[in-house]
Amino acid sequence: MEMMVLALDEARQAATRGEVPVGAVIVGPDGRALASTGNRIEELNDPTAHAEVLAIREAAANLQSPRLIDCDLYVTLEPCAMCAQAISLARVRRLVFAAYDPKGGGVEHGARVFSHTTCHHAPEVVGGVMESYAAQMLKQFFKARR
Amino acid sequence: MEMMVLALDEARQAATRGEVPVGAVIVGPDGRALASTGNRIEELNDPTAHAEVLAIREAAANLQSPRLIDCDLYVTLEPCAMCAQAISLARVRRLVFAAYDPKGGGVEHGARVFSHTTCHHAPEVVGGVMESYAAQMLKQFFKARR
Repeated sequence: MEMMVLALDEARQAATRGEVPVGAVIVGPDGRALASTGNRIEELNDPTAHAEVLAIREAAANLQSPRLIDCDLYVTLEPCAMCAQAISLARVRRLVFAAYDPKGGGVEHGARVFSHTTCHHAPEVVGGVMESYAAQMLKQFFKARR
Repeated sequence: MEMMVLALDEARQAATRGEVPVGAVIVGPDGRALASTGNRIEELNDPTAHAEVLAIREAAANLQSPRLIDCDLYVTLEPCAMCAQAISLARVRRLVFAAYDPKGGGVEHGARVFSHTTCHHAPEVVGGVMESYAAQMLKQFFKARR
């Protein structure tokens, strides 16, 4: 729960930057946060700057390894196919996400990246943790923009 | 052809850095290369540093926009699900790739990212361009490593 609260705080900060409110935290083998960030697509002019990708890059830089062995990723929204495959490539142990994303998700919806026989590494997946908080934040963000 | 030759040269340079030989080039609306790079996963300790992602990030930074409108991406290997979704998010117009990748590809194999109804933007896809050159380079790289 504690790590999802941190991720939700990152999502809130992303919204204040005009980004879709998504936040992510990566927890290392010792149980401490290795990386914590939110979406920065518009800020960085980078279509790949989803919270999960930024967190994976930061954690890998911290560990000086492209593989995040025994690390867990907490994110406030179901990852898209890009982020899901990045999670697989990084060998993340467990993925915990809050809101489900029927429109853009790539884990339980759409491409279902971890479900194919060619997926070399699939993390343990736990969805729906503190779902209502994350969903509410997204709803408010898009409502204010319309 | 010219742009794929450039991408193959980037793949060759990646191999000399000890990276899986994959190269990518992004061509802007004026027909000139906006970004050109190869895999840098080991060099950067970044599991997301596939040639396509690096090229998209570089081109978006050059255009100062997260959307690569009217841009085409040339890559020496069928993109994985991460790169395919990044291509979709970046609104790339056309994807041209060389070798098919039954084991790791996410366009014609596995997650088939562009084939889902929830995929908001699918590029035109042309596969198999100069396929034998790219496949041969990959085969030699993995043979030398075993």
